Amino acid sequence: MKVSIIFGSQSDTAIMKKAAEVLKDFGIPYNSRVISAHRCPELLGTVLAEYENDGTEVIIAGAGLAAHLPGVIASKTLIPVIGVPVGGGALNGVDALYSIVQMPKSIPVAAIGIDNAANAAYLAAAILGIKYPEVREKLENARKQAKEDLAKNSIVDL
Amino acid sequence: MKVSIIFGSQSDTAIMKKAAEVLKDFGIPYNSRVISAHRCPELLGTVLAEYENDGTEVIIAGAGLAAHLPGVIASKTLIPVIGVPVGGGALNGVDALYSIVQMPKSIPVAAIGIDNAANAAYLAAAILGIKYPEVREKLENARKQAKEDLAKNSIVDL
Amino acid sequence: MKVSIIFGSQSDTAIMKKAAEVLKDFGIPYNSRVISAHRCPELLGTVLAEYENDGTEVIIAGAGLAAHLPGVIASKTLIPVIGVPVGGGALNGVDALYSIVQMPKSIPVAAIGIDNAANAAYLAAAILGIKYPEVREKLENARKQAKEDLAKNSIVDL
Amino acid sequence: MKVSIIFGSQSDTAIMKKAAEVLKDFGIPYNSRVISAHRCPELLGTVLAEYENDGTEVIIAGAGLAAHLPGVIASKTLIPVIGVPVGGGALNGVDALYSIVQMPKSIPVAAIGIDNAANAAYLAAAILGIKYPEVREKLENARKQAKEDLAKNSIVDL
Amino acid sequence: MKVSIIFGSQSDTAIMKKAAEVLKDFGIPYNSRVISAHRCPELLGTVLAEYENDGTEVIIAGAGLAAHLPGVIASKTLIPVIGVPVGGGALNGVDALYSIVQMPKSIPVAAIGIDNAANAAYLAAAILGIKYPEVREKLENARKQAKEDLAKNSIVDL
Amino acid sequence: MKVSIIFGSQSDTAIMKKAAEVLKDFGIPYNSRVISAHRCPELLGTVLAEYENDGTEVIIAGAGLAAHLPGVIASKTLIPVIGVPVGGGALNGVDALYSIVQMPKSIPVAAIGIDNAANAAYLAAAILGIKYPEVREKLENARKQAKEDLAKNSIVDL
Amino acid sequence: MKVSIIFGSQSDTAIMKKAAEVLKDFGIPYNSRVISAHRCPELLGTVLAEYENDGTEVIIAGAGLAAHLPGVIASKTLIPVIGVPVGGGALNGVDALYSIVQMPKSIPVAAIGIDNAANAAYLAAAILGIKYPEVREKLENARKQAKEDLAKNSIVDL
Amino acid sequence: MKVSIIFGSQSDTAIMKKAAEVLKDFGIPYNSRVISAHRCPELLGTVLAEYENDGTEVIIAGAGLAAHLPGVIASKTLIPVIGVPVGGGALNGVDALYSIVQMPKSIPVAAIGIDNAANAAYLAAAILGIKYPEVREKLENARKQAKEDLAKNSIVDL
Repeated sequence: MKVSIIFGSQSDTAIMKKAAEVLKDFGIPYNSRVISAHRCPELLGTVLAEYENDGTEVIIAGAGLAAHLPGVIASKTLIPVIGVPVGGGALNGVDALYSIVQMPKSIPVAAIGIDNAANAAYLAAAILGIKYPEVREKLENARKQAKEDLAKNSIVDL
Repeated sequence: MKVSIIFGSQSDTAIMKKAAEVLKDFGIPYNSRVISAHRCPELLGTVLAEYENDGTEVIIAGAGLAAHLPGVIASKTLIPVIGVPVGGGALNGVDALYSIVQMPKSIPVAAIGIDNAANAAYLAAAILGIKYPEVREKLENARKQAKEDLAKNSIVDL
Repeated sequence: MKVSIIFGSQSDTAIMKKAAEVLKDFGIPYNSRVISAHRCPELLGTVLAEYENDGTEVIIAGAGLAAHLPGVIASKTLIPVIGVPVGGGALNGVDALYSIVQMPKSIPVAAIGIDNAANAAYLAAAILGIKYPEVREKLENARKQAKEDLAKNSIVDL
Repeated sequence: MKVSIIFGSQSDTAIMKKAAEVLKDFGIPYNSRVISAHRCPELLGTVLAEYENDGTEVIIAGAGLAAHLPGVIASKTLIPVIGVPVGGGALNGVDALYSIVQMPKSIPVAAIGIDNAANAAYLAAAILGIKYPEVREKLENARKQAKEDLAKNSIVDL
Repeated sequence: MKVSIIFGSQSDTAIMKKAAEVLKDFGIPYNSRVISAHRCPELLGTVLAEYENDGTEVIIAGAGLAAHLPGVIASKTLIPVIGVPVGGGALNGVDALYSIVQMPKSIPVAAIGIDNAANAAYLAAAILGIKYPEVREKLENARKQAKEDLAKNSIVDL
Repeated sequence: MKVSIIFGSQSDTAIMKKAAEVLKDFGIPYNSRVISAHRCPELLGTVLAEYENDGTEVIIAGAGLAAHLPGVIASKTLIPVIGVPVGGGALNGVDALYSIVQMPKSIPVAAIGIDNAANAAYLAAAILGIKYPEVREKLENARKQAKEDLAKNSIVDL
Repeated sequence: MKVSIIFGSQSDTAIMKKAAEVLKDFGIPYNSRVISAHRCPELLGTVLAEYENDGTEVIIAGAGLAAHLPGVIASKTLIPVIGVPVGGGALNGVDALYSIVQMPKSIPVAAIGIDNAANAAYLAAAILGIKYPEVREKLENARKQAKEDLAKNSIVDL
Repeated sequence: MKVSIIFGSQSDTAIMKKAAEVLKDFGIPYNSRVISAHRCPELLGTVLAEYENDGTEVIIAGAGLAAHLPGVIASKTLIPVIGVPVGGGALNGVDALYSIVQMPKSIPVAAIGIDNAANAAYLAAAILGIKYPEVREKLENARKQAKEDLAKNSIVDL
């Protein structure tokens, strides 16, 4: 069981760290690489080939602007790919969202919200949860705990 | 192993059928319901409770306009939820896409392209593939076959 | 007579305070809660059940991003629901606006402008005004007073 | 008890009829006028003055394009105004939606979805329901009936 | 010969000042008022009635958000109205632009670019120029001068 | 007194005809040319030079897509230029609207609504009206007549 | 000298034919292939390797939706790549445009207008024209001829 | 061999410098001018006439807002024109992108991403590379070097 995180540019690091933090909380093993789909296509191929045999069961791929990375990965593997549209450019991530979500038939990417890498990790945990009961259990506990914490603070004084 | 398909309105039937067809091709069992998140919240709750114990491992949820259905489902289960934004209204599905993809932290929905329910099924198959080698194999064969078919017709005369 | 304010996240507090301030000015009783529609659906149900019997006659619900809260509330009550799209994310509140306003037939939410929680309170006052002449009168006085104040300062030197 | 429907152009008739039909179903008295805010400002003033004394408790105003009508009405009355953005132009009603919903502080319009005049009527009924128990009851019955009807047809064969 | 500047809110002052500065440069008399179309409709009527007889030949109207002011003015006068969409809100002025430019047939507003109040003054000068040769001449000189100034600095070192 | 109509492509003819019809109704002389700013820049220069001396006092310029025509004209003349964004392409005229309205400081184009060439003619009439009392009078009569006609048909049965 | 046309789906044929027609008019040799970047990545690699040695000097790549094809090609070759965003989906080609134009630094794609494959061919001709005087000459003649043809028909009767 | 850089306003300097830096890195001669298409049309004509005979083989043109400059240049020369949409205004460069990319048939501009002037230079190098093997070689080396540099830093610790 492993989640592999790939993102397209060093400038996406702060956003993608949020995925790693959630995975850490759930005790889900992960690794992470910065690989541009366009500038390092061969390296991407090599790394993806490794993922076929190193236990990777979900890939989280983050990219901004044209954001082809998640789709290019999905075209080279059958491991489920979760795409994180990274904002910050002139179009605030709408470009990345459209590039990630509007994939052609048969090569899906699971898009989550702009800059919301934490949700990519929660989604990865839900996916792993169908196979690993201990992940499902941790997810269940986390959700229960969050409910209780939020409930305690639900009365506010405006 | 089962995929449960839920969509918000009878008018989404033609779009959601495309998911069913792909699941059928892969021999993945599925069931399907039309349940409006807003008009039938109790029924939705009852049905989702059933899904916890009937072998459902992925939920595909389609909706148009405000398209809360996938997110509301995701808030009530830990089964991975794939959201299909259904177009056709005045905003062509951009409203549905935003409602489905921009979920808050910890309650992810895996969004796929507008009206692209087939891809929801492909994604469901990829997710099930991490647990069921036979699904992964079928996916692999389908991709290989598609490659060959497309390659044969790749030369066109413009 | 009471207005109940609910919003989805502590981070919406500053925006939603503007609704409370206007209600205070009009002497309209209100309470306020932070309840995430997705993270605390059961608590939301419990609280909404209370509102059926505690004199709540208008609900003001604020949320950002996918912003399902106002619609989910509207699906569980017949009390009129006013939705406040909260901006601040990558899409500047357009996502929240679409999610709030594009509700399906028979489950309406009354949408007001992005981040404009004050107007939610003015709208609540107008609604209450059809039943409580004293609210209508206060609204009338406020509008008259604003007219006079603005008229006094209408000549500017550019 | 009365709802007054006003819309800006004869070409909006088909859309606005959907509001009338819902009001009819609920037995809520209504009248309807076509008055352009820009081409007939004086007539609009005259008619609105009448509404102050003829029992009108909610105004439903529909308009397309720049769609100033609901806001202009709201500036001249304290009766709650529900705005229906009518689509059909080059911008598909996004222009009308923004013009209706982005009102300045203290002059709110309750916006509902593009072309969704039926929801304007449902919202009007909810508002009247806080004063007239019989309207609230009809709304309750309609919602219950819709739930049952939808539940009966919720199983579909894809 | 006079240009009357009206804008909807004190917060638009900095933007609208740019119109005044250009008019000053051309020696075109102008006055300026802050009048909200929605909060002070009667004052707006009074002031517009004055403009019919005080020599006003062009009106420059600036507003943000729903930005009805230019259109409401155009509905009450036959003096040409130039609309300035003021940005700054969550939608960056796209709302104001659509509200100003998408006017119904027969009640036109001349829209200029978002926040570009200077251009409203240039346009006013061009309009006055068809009647007052001295304005046309000043415009001609300004354009010629700008051409020469820009030409002098056209070589840059990157 | 003359209005010169220029548009960029034969395919804009049906839209631009609406401007001609309104001018005809007001008895305002006009001529019309199809000149692409990009494909016939020299012809455009020649024709614009003629307009300086043939009595043209307003130019109405219509174009779709990149829609540079109105701005290019405005850069070559001091006659006021009204721009008509023509829709019909993949972006429905939003591209043309932005290209026409977002002009740089000192070279304004008066934008009117997408495909709303009639309003270009009404605006031209309002501009001419500041110089020619007879045009102003016709405009006044037309508006009065429209008011009466609309008022007669203002009661509708929904 | 050769232009290679690649597009992602048989459904793009009608649009891409417009590029071929213009190349034919200029007597520029071309070939054409349908290759999905996602479904046939290996075939794409093979074909692009051929293009390095078969005289291809410009690649025209058309795709819709996520439209990664032009960018993926640009990542694998140094031959200039012109991207044609193909519309037709729910987002009318805005998705394809953003995916094609917003490429990361150092891997450019030359984007042309949505569905405007003819312009891709004109751009290819301009690029080839810097090396092949006969192409430049043909382009020159075509432009001159178009100018004359358009000038002849520039007077229209509205 | 020369690249000529033109941009519309001094305020675009910082963005356009990025093009110059890349050209410098590749040893490609270039010159640069600030010329507003609208404020200095004659100067633009003069300068473009010079470019026909001074060895200019690619023009990079940057502009913001209505951004007509690249298209106006393309209408006056057959040298390939690369357009850089400059952001920064209220519409974040979407206006400039649409104005640059949506050119009419036969007058193409090669659009690159918003504010991405570096890519204009990379594209210029690719275009020159079809004629000048030494440019192609430098491009090849740069891409190879970038690949190696990025590969070295591809492992990150999140």
